[in-house]
Amino acid sequence: MSLTILPAQTLAIVRALLTALPDPDAGSIALARTREPQLTKPPGSLGRLEELAAWIAGWQGRHPAGMRNPRVHVFAGNHGVAALGVSAFPAEVTAQMVLNYDHGGAAINQICQAFGIQLGVTALELDRPTRPFTEGPAMEEEEVLAAFNAGLTLDLSGADCLCLGEMGIGNTTSAAALSLALFGGTAEDWTGPGTGVTGSALETKIGVVRDGVAKHAEEATDGLDLLRRLGGRELAAIAGAIVAARLSRVPVVLDGFIVCSAAACLKAITPNALDHCLLAHASREPGHRRLAQALEMAPLLDLGLALGEGSGAALAVPLLQAACQCHRGMATFAEAGVSDKE
Amino acid sequence: MSLTILPAQTLAIVRALLTALPDPDAGSIALARTREPQLTKPPGSLGRLEELAAWIAGWQGRHPAGMRNPRVHVFAGNHGVAALGVSAFPAEVTAQMVLNYDHGGAAINQICQAFGIQLGVTALELDRPTRPFTEGPAMEEEEVLAAFNAGLTLDLSGADCLCLGEMGIGNTTSAAALSLALFGGTAEDWTGPGTGVTGSALETKIGVVRDGVAKHAEEATDGLDLLRRLGGRELAAIAGAIVAARLSRVPVVLDGFIVCSAAACLKAITPNALDHCLLAHASREPGHRRLAQALEMAPLLDLGLALGEGSGAALAVPLLQAACQCHRGMATFAEAGVSDKE
Repeated sequence: MSLTILPAQTLAIVRALLTALPDPDAGSIALARTREPQLTKPPGSLGRLEELAAWIAGWQGRHPAGMRNPRVHVFAGNHGVAALGVSAFPAEVTAQMVLNYDHGGAAINQICQAFGIQLGVTALELDRPTRPFTEGPAMEEEEVLAAFNAGLTLDLSGADCLCLGEMGIGNTTSAAALSLALFGGTAEDWTGPGTGVTGSALETKIGVVRDGVAKHAEEATDGLDLLRRLGGRELAAIAGAIVAARLSRVPVVLDGFIVCSAAACLKAITPNALDHCLLAHASREPGHRRLAQALEMAPLLDLGLALGEGSGAALAVPLLQAACQCHRGMATFAEAGVSDKE
Repeated sequence: MSLTILPAQTLAIVRALLTALPDPDAGSIALARTREPQLTKPPGSLGRLEELAAWIAGWQGRHPAGMRNPRVHVFAGNHGVAALGVSAFPAEVTAQMVLNYDHGGAAINQICQAFGIQLGVTALELDRPTRPFTEGPAMEEEEVLAAFNAGLTLDLSGADCLCLGEMGIGNTTSAAALSLALFGGTAEDWTGPGTGVTGSALETKIGVVRDGVAKHAEEATDGLDLLRRLGGRELAAIAGAIVAARLSRVPVVLDGFIVCSAAACLKAITPNALDHCLLAHASREPGHRRLAQALEMAPLLDLGLALGEGSGAALAVPLLQAACQCHRGMATFAEAGVSDKE
């Protein structure tokens, strides 16, 4: 099932959309739960793969669920705060990495090739970085809306899941600021090395996060407004893509700290907004683990990744494929002539 | 590089083999460590995948390492202790599940199909269960040697890795007994639900483990002798296959509690015997986590599995493939024209 999505005209329409998100298909979940205990294995012995098979069926709205056409989409944006010395890499790396994706040279290209995943990349006005959020809102309403729409209008036809990734020098600073504004604590709690800042550069980054949140938190009206003030174009597009996937019955695989901070803005508005999303991994970035707890999401993988570009989400795809294949393909006790539990 | 393996004639030859195991190839590891920091990503950002790429190169003895031909091999055996009421399933399920593997109906068939892994299964004299180890040694020397040789002579030509799995009703009882004998503690520490025993059946199982270890621990001479006394044919074959893989330069992926307990018997003789093995996952079986700690191995996955048949090992294969593909296929900073860290 796929719905036609009209691009949102204002953030008010986005807010309205978020109050009317579809639920999972109870019938598909029930079919999965009926089939699972008949399969030739001790009850529960496939652990999280069993939950995944039912969860995917519910959100795809079909049983048995399928995972032949996984997708990764990477959104890239540039951040004004990058000029404040918050990253270990210069801002031009965002555009250079987009070229690297186009030429097939990045980690996400290799992972997608290894697993047969279709990769898409959208670069969002890289020559127009957002305003440094220490000076004012990162984006005007029309800017955040345009970026959100880039995700909301993503073509998801035929997709069995959507793995979301990002590239944007400076964007762990946005993720830390959003997390602090949404969940409280201190700037130190949420601010980490990102691509590798340490020492005085890390102190600078912490200060930028603290100052930015202090400037905006009181005036901000909700999660989407925080996304406008402290986020970036790629974060807004990711939020839009999460909504698009929900409307298109495509389960979402969330990646690291930045993707989760964008997702958190939606959940701040509608508590069930991320029910069709699972968390692929716990990254090395300390804020990500804290954010996963705040979102009450249990990561599938814990591999010490800190790369972004959807790499952790893509690495979880084979687990989803295995879950679907086991659920669909295994023989039942009756079919195989295997004695059930005594 | 591949050595011709002469079937071991006595356990003494196996012991001698274990004192002369080859080391990893330092040159291949050095090449991996030189290439890794040149790739277009922040240093260390692929986490455990970076370690894996170097580790696989070392044990395959080539750089870049490859992972196009992963293998799973499942060994099946029957256990005399199954008659003592230690399992939730009847002993005939071992043979029934081997038929299920042959017909493609088990979980491991689905995972191998999903990931393109070649699956092999060896059933070891299923009509001759081992002696209950509460009565005497599970196997005579010629029996354990024949089973060990079934693994030692496994054809590994062309294999890029070997995932080891097992099937054998009653074999978590063997695994618990071996772990208790090797690492100490109490029978309760190591004995868990296996396929799902609880209550008085679990008490029975704990008693069998305690009595078996009390009967043999003092007389046992080393890890291989413990494997003979408390193990089973599939455990001995797994130990043999681990040695075969080392001699054939094939990295090994260990699965759950039973596979690890067989592996632990080798490490008890030669501390570096498992250096070419990695631990795929931490299972739901409580003894497995404890055993992983005793073996000083960090699992790649933690999915609440408790199935055996190599399922957890096979689920880790895509991570190895991604590690190899990223290391081999990614562009360097120079090739991609991406600015390196400032």
